[in-house]
Amino acid sequence: MGVVVTNIKRPSEHLVQAFGEQSVATVHEAQGRTGLMASYMRPIYRPARIAGPAVTCSVAPGDNWMIHVAIEQCKPGDVLVVAPTSPCEDGYFGDLLATSLMARGVRGLIIDAGVRDIADLTEMKFPVWSKAVYAQGTVKETVGDVNMPLVCAGALVNPGDLVLADDDGVVVVPRDACGKVLEKAKARVANEEAKRKRFAAGELGLDVYGFRERLADKGLTYVEQGAED
Amino acid sequence: MGVVVTNIKRPSEHLVQAFGEQSVATVHEAQGRTGLMASYMRPIYRPARIAGPAVTCSVAPGDNWMIHVAIEQCKPGDVLVVAPTSPCEDGYFGDLLATSLMARGVRGLIIDAGVRDIADLTEMKFPVWSKAVYAQGTVKETVGDVNMPLVCAGALVNPGDLVLADDDGVVVVPRDACGKVLEKAKARVANEEAKRKRFAAGELGLDVYGFRERLADKGLTYVEQGAED
Amino acid sequence: MGVVVTNIKRPSEHLVQAFGEQSVATVHEAQGRTGLMASYMRPIYRPARIAGPAVTCSVAPGDNWMIHVAIEQCKPGDVLVVAPTSPCEDGYFGDLLATSLMARGVRGLIIDAGVRDIADLTEMKFPVWSKAVYAQGTVKETVGDVNMPLVCAGALVNPGDLVLADDDGVVVVPRDACGKVLEKAKARVANEEAKRKRFAAGELGLDVYGFRERLADKGLTYVEQGAED
Amino acid sequence: MGVVVTNIKRPSEHLVQAFGEQSVATVHEAQGRTGLMASYMRPIYRPARIAGPAVTCSVAPGDNWMIHVAIEQCKPGDVLVVAPTSPCEDGYFGDLLATSLMARGVRGLIIDAGVRDIADLTEMKFPVWSKAVYAQGTVKETVGDVNMPLVCAGALVNPGDLVLADDDGVVVVPRDACGKVLEKAKARVANEEAKRKRFAAGELGLDVYGFRERLADKGLTYVEQGAED
Amino acid sequence: MGVVVTNIKRPSEHLVQAFGEQSVATVHEAQGRTGLMASYMRPIYRPARIAGPAVTCSVAPGDNWMIHVAIEQCKPGDVLVVAPTSPCEDGYFGDLLATSLMARGVRGLIIDAGVRDIADLTEMKFPVWSKAVYAQGTVKETVGDVNMPLVCAGALVNPGDLVLADDDGVVVVPRDACGKVLEKAKARVANEEAKRKRFAAGELGLDVYGFRERLADKGLTYVEQGAED
Amino acid sequence: MGVVVTNIKRPSEHLVQAFGEQSVATVHEAQGRTGLMASYMRPIYRPARIAGPAVTCSVAPGDNWMIHVAIEQCKPGDVLVVAPTSPCEDGYFGDLLATSLMARGVRGLIIDAGVRDIADLTEMKFPVWSKAVYAQGTVKETVGDVNMPLVCAGALVNPGDLVLADDDGVVVVPRDACGKVLEKAKARVANEEAKRKRFAAGELGLDVYGFRERLADKGLTYVEQGAED
Repeated sequence: MGVVVTNIKRPSEHLVQAFGEQSVATVHEAQGRTGLMASYMRPIYRPARIAGPAVTCSVAPGDNWMIHVAIEQCKPGDVLVVAPTSPCEDGYFGDLLATSLMARGVRGLIIDAGVRDIADLTEMKFPVWSKAVYAQGTVKETVGDVNMPLVCAGALVNPGDLVLADDDGVVVVPRDACGKVLEKAKARVANEEAKRKRFAAGELGLDVYGFRERLADKGLTYVEQGAED
Repeated sequence: MGVVVTNIKRPSEHLVQAFGEQSVATVHEAQGRTGLMASYMRPIYRPARIAGPAVTCSVAPGDNWMIHVAIEQCKPGDVLVVAPTSPCEDGYFGDLLATSLMARGVRGLIIDAGVRDIADLTEMKFPVWSKAVYAQGTVKETVGDVNMPLVCAGALVNPGDLVLADDDGVVVVPRDACGKVLEKAKARVANEEAKRKRFAAGELGLDVYGFRERLADKGLTYVEQGAED
Repeated sequence: MGVVVTNIKRPSEHLVQAFGEQSVATVHEAQGRTGLMASYMRPIYRPARIAGPAVTCSVAPGDNWMIHVAIEQCKPGDVLVVAPTSPCEDGYFGDLLATSLMARGVRGLIIDAGVRDIADLTEMKFPVWSKAVYAQGTVKETVGDVNMPLVCAGALVNPGDLVLADDDGVVVVPRDACGKVLEKAKARVANEEAKRKRFAAGELGLDVYGFRERLADKGLTYVEQGAED
Repeated sequence: MGVVVTNIKRPSEHLVQAFGEQSVATVHEAQGRTGLMASYMRPIYRPARIAGPAVTCSVAPGDNWMIHVAIEQCKPGDVLVVAPTSPCEDGYFGDLLATSLMARGVRGLIIDAGVRDIADLTEMKFPVWSKAVYAQGTVKETVGDVNMPLVCAGALVNPGDLVLADDDGVVVVPRDACGKVLEKAKARVANEEAKRKRFAAGELGLDVYGFRERLADKGLTYVEQGAED
Repeated sequence: MGVVVTNIKRPSEHLVQAFGEQSVATVHEAQGRTGLMASYMRPIYRPARIAGPAVTCSVAPGDNWMIHVAIEQCKPGDVLVVAPTSPCEDGYFGDLLATSLMARGVRGLIIDAGVRDIADLTEMKFPVWSKAVYAQGTVKETVGDVNMPLVCAGALVNPGDLVLADDDGVVVVPRDACGKVLEKAKARVANEEAKRKRFAAGELGLDVYGFRERLADKGLTYVEQGAED
Repeated sequence: MGVVVTNIKRPSEHLVQAFGEQSVATVHEAQGRTGLMASYMRPIYRPARIAGPAVTCSVAPGDNWMIHVAIEQCKPGDVLVVAPTSPCEDGYFGDLLATSLMARGVRGLIIDAGVRDIADLTEMKFPVWSKAVYAQGTVKETVGDVNMPLVCAGALVNPGDLVLADDDGVVVVPRDACGKVLEKAKARVANEEAKRKRFAAGELGLDVYGFRERLADKGLTYVEQGAED
C-alpha cells in the first residue's frame, strides 16, 4: 500500500475515440465475454457513454484521500477508476472533486462505492458509474495505491486499460488487446446491422441463424394446446 | 424440458385493451392482492405501460436460445414473459431481439433476468421490465419450454394469462378471471375517484372511511406532547 | 403501541426554509456525519428536494392504517416519516393518500417501505423517498404510533426533527440542533465555493488542502511505470 | 382469500417413505431440474431430512393467524408449507406451534419467512427450513388460504404435492408425478453408485463420461505453462 | 464525534441475571414487539445466550480503534455493542480483543459489522453476534464515541440498556423499563407453559385461543377438495 | 475461452505446509490486507482449514463441464478454485466430483457459486468454501478455461497461487510472494502471542499499544455521565 505509479502507458487517442462509438455489450462480446464489471455498477444519469484509459485508485473503506492523489496522475481523456479495499458504499466523490477532474479533462468516474451531489454532477454533465448513491462522508487518513492493478466490481483493471461505459454498465479492455478487440467489435456491428434489417422485415432468428435443426436434435418438440399432457 | 405449445388461448383483444387503461396497483387489488411479481422487476424507462396475453418462455441460466423459439409463437399484441430455470442476471435480450419482437407486433418483454442495449431499447420505445441491466452475453446450447406454466419473479404465469405492467411493476391475471377482475377494477377506480375528490377537498381518511371508532376500540389513544411519559 | 402525540414542537418555518436551500451531503457533514438514512432510500423522481418538520408514524408490516391517523397530525410544510415495525417493502402509499397529504400542505413522504402509483405521484409532483416501488397492497388492522421516536432506514427520528431530502438521500437534524447545524452548513458552502473556483482553475486538492507532506509521512511513494517491481 | 380446502389428496405413505431415502439433488435432477425452492431456504439445524405431503398455508405479512387454521388440516406425516403473500422475514413460528404440530405427527415446516425459538426447536428435533431466523412477532388479524396452490420461495406448491427437504434445500414433486420421479431417482442413484466406484478408483470424468472428443470439437485446447501467450 | 462517557448507569445485576433466563422472542413480545435488531445479526456459534448492560461504541468504517477505548469502560458482566457510522462488514474484532474483553469479565460482543478468528472465539467460548464473518483488517485512525446513544442493526441502544442475545438474535431493553418488561416476560412464560401442555396433548390453537368465531366473521370458509371452484 | 494450461508452477510443499498452520486473518494482514475473497464465501462445515496451490477453472453460468477438465490438471495437495463467468448460485459440485477430487489428493474446493450434497461432503470430510448451498443442477455444453488467471469472489487468482481457507474465509497469496508473506505472518503470530499474554493479564490495548496520546491529539474527550450535554 502507498505506491503511486507515474507515466503509465495508455492506448492511442485514436483507438480510444473509436471505442467511444462502440457499445459495452458489443465490446464485451468482441473480447470473448470477459472484462465486464458487476451489474450493480449503474450510471447516475442516462444516456451516458465514455471511453478512455484507466487511472486506477485503491482507497480504504470510508476514506477518499487517495482520490486527490489520483487526480494529479490524470491526463485529458482519462477515466478514473476507484475501488475500495473492502466493500463500502460511502459517498467518496461529489461536485468539488468533479470540478477538479473536469478541469483536467477527465471524461468520467467509475467507482465501486458511493457517490454524492448527483444533482450537481448531472447538471455539470460529469458522468459517474457507481455502486450506490449515498451522502455519507469520508475521512482522509489512510494511503492506498494509484495506478496499480486492482479488482473493481469483479473486473481486473490494469492502469492504462481501456474503460468503456454506457447505459448497460462498464467493460474493461486490456491495453494490448485494444486493436484486436476494436476490429472484432466493428465486424460484429456490421454483421448485426445486416441481421437487424432481416429481423425488421419479419424474418425469424430461427431461420436467420438456422437454429431449427439443432433444436430438433436437442429434442425440442412442438405440441398444440390441449395436447401437451 | 423442450416442449413448445402452439396455438394457446388468449383473452379477447377487447379485454386486453380495457386492461391497458388500468394500473397494476388497481388490478392487483381487484383480484384479491394476488398475481404480483417481485418488487425487483423494474421498467428500463418511465413512464411505460403495456397489457397483453403472455407467451411464456423458460431459459437455462446464461442461455437465451429459447427466446428465438418463443418469438415465433408470438402474435401481435402479445407480451413475452421469460424466466430462467435458476436465478440469473445475464443480459438475455438486446436490440436485435427487440427488433424481431417489434416486427411481430409484440408489446413488450417481462424478464426475470438481465437485459442490455437499454439505450437503444429506450430510443426504439420497446418497453422491458427486468430484474437487472447487465451487458453479460449468453450462449445458445440448452432447450427449455415455450408456453408451459412457469414462475416468473415469484408469480405463476400460465400461457395466455393477461400480463399488465406499468411504472409500479408487473401483475398477472389468469385468463379465465379477466372479465371478473376487469369489472372489479373499474368499480374500484370509480370508487377511488369519489374518494379522491373528498381528499382533495381536505377531508380526512379517518372520516371518509369512518376509522375513528374502530381505532379507539383497538386502543389508540391521543396525548399532547409533554404528556406522553 | 397505539399512541398519537399531538401538538408536537417544530423548528421555525424560517429555519426550515433556510434548510431547503442546503444539500443533504452538506448538512450531513455540518452535523458531524450523523443522521443519514440508509443508501437504499431513493426518490421516485429526480430532481427533488424538500425540507420540513417530521411527523413520525410507525406501521405494522403490510398494514397502512396508521398513515390515515398520521395525516390528521400533519400541518402545512410538514414531512411525513413512516417506518414499519419490521422490514417490509409493500406499497403502503399511493395517489389517494398523496392527494390527502397535498390537500394539507405536506411537502413529501419518507417511507422505509414500498410506494405505488408512482406514475401518478410523479405527475402530481408529490415527492417520495422510499425503500422500494411495489404495487403490493396493505391491510388496515393493527395500530401503531404517531409522533413517537422511531428508527427509519437506520436513522433515529424524533417528531419535530428537521428532515431534509434530495437526490442523494435523506438526513435528519435534531430540532434543537437546527440553528447550529444551519450555521455550519452555510460556512461549509462558503468555504466550498472558494475551493470550487480554485479546482475549476486547475489547482489540485493536494495543494489546495496541503496534503503532500502528510501523505509522504504516511509513506506514500512515487515510482515511474516499469520501476514498480 | 379466506378459503380452507379440506380432505386433500396425498401421495401414498409408501411413496413418501421411499422419497425419504432420496436426496433433494437427486430428486430435482430426476424430475428434469424443476421444483426447487430458492437457495435462501436453509434448515435451522443439520443434518436434517424429511419427506411428506404438503399442507399449504398463505399468510399475510407479519400475521401468523392462518398457521393455527392450517394445523387442523394436517395429518400425521404431513409437511406444513407456509408462504407470505408479500415478502416478510418475521418470526411466524416458534416452539408453541411446533409443539402443536408434533402432537399431530407433522414431520416439519417449510416457511418462506422467518422462524424463532430455534434453540428450542433444535432441542425438540422439529426440523424447519426457512428464509430467516428472526424473533420478530406477528399479529392475528388477516385471513389467508389453506390448501390452495401457492408459490413458496419461487416454487409452485399444490396441496398434496410431495415435499422433500434436506441439508441442500427443498424440492417439490407434483403428486401425480411421484411414482415416475421416484423410479428415475432410484435409477439415477444406481447409476451414480457405479460412477462413484470408478471415481474413487481414480478414473476421470473426462473418460467415464467420454467428454474428450466433444470438448475438442468445441475448441478446447491444451498448452503448457509459458506457452499460453 | 470523539466523546467517551464514563460511569454510565446500569440495571442491577439481579435484573440482568433474571433476563439471562429469558429468551429474545419472549422479551421482545413482553415489551410490545420493540427493540429487536435486524435478522442479519447472527451468533458465530450455537447455542449461545447472554444478557448484560450495553457499553456502546461507534466506529468509523474499516477502523476499530475505538474498540480499544471502549474496553476500558467495560465492567464485569457488560455486553459491548459496536456499530459503524456507515455500513461495513470488515473484521473489526478477533481473538486478541476477545482475550482483553474476557479478562475484564465482559459477557460478549454485539457488532453490526464483521468479526474474524471465529474458530478461536468459538474455542474460547466468547460469544459474538455479528452481521458478517470476514477476515478483512481495519485501521486505527479515526475517533468515534463510547457510551453515546447509537443505532445498531436498526435498534436504538442507549448505554446501560439491557442487551439480551440468543440463537434467535438480539433485543434491547431500555434501562428504565427492565423491571416492568421482566415481569411481563415472566407472566408470558407462565402463560405459555400452560398452553404448551394443552398443545402437547393435541388441543388446537383454534380452540385454545378461541379463534373459530372471529375467523368466520372475517369470512373464512371451508370447502372439500374438488368443490373449491 | 477454451484454454487449458498444463504443468503450472506451484509453491513448494514445504511452504504450503507452513501456510497450513497460519490463519486467513493473519496471512491477509501479513501481505498488506490484500488477496481476500468476499465475505459471502463460507465453509460448508466448521471447523475447516486448508492450504494449497490453486488450480483455476472458469465455468459458464449453470454449466459445470469444465470442472471435469480441471480435475485432470489437479495434483495431490492442490486446491481447486472455480468461478463462473457471470454470477450464478447453481449447485456445480456434489459428492461424485468430490469423490474424484479426493481420489486425486485434492485438499478442497473454493467456488464462487453453489454446491450440493453437503451432507455427504461433510461426512466425507471434503471441505468446500462456496457462495451458496443449492441443489440446482447444471449442464455440460460450454467450454471455459483451466489454469488461466481469474477473479474469484472479488480476488484475483493466478494458477499456482497459494490459497488458504479457514472458518473466516479465503485468502490468496501470489506464488512469488509466499516466502516473504509467510515470514511476516510468523512474525505477526509471535508478536500477537506476547500481546495476548498481556491482554489476558488485564492490560488494556490503550496502554499496550500506547494509544492514549494520539487519541487525545485527535480530540477524544472523556465526560462523566450526566455531564455530556
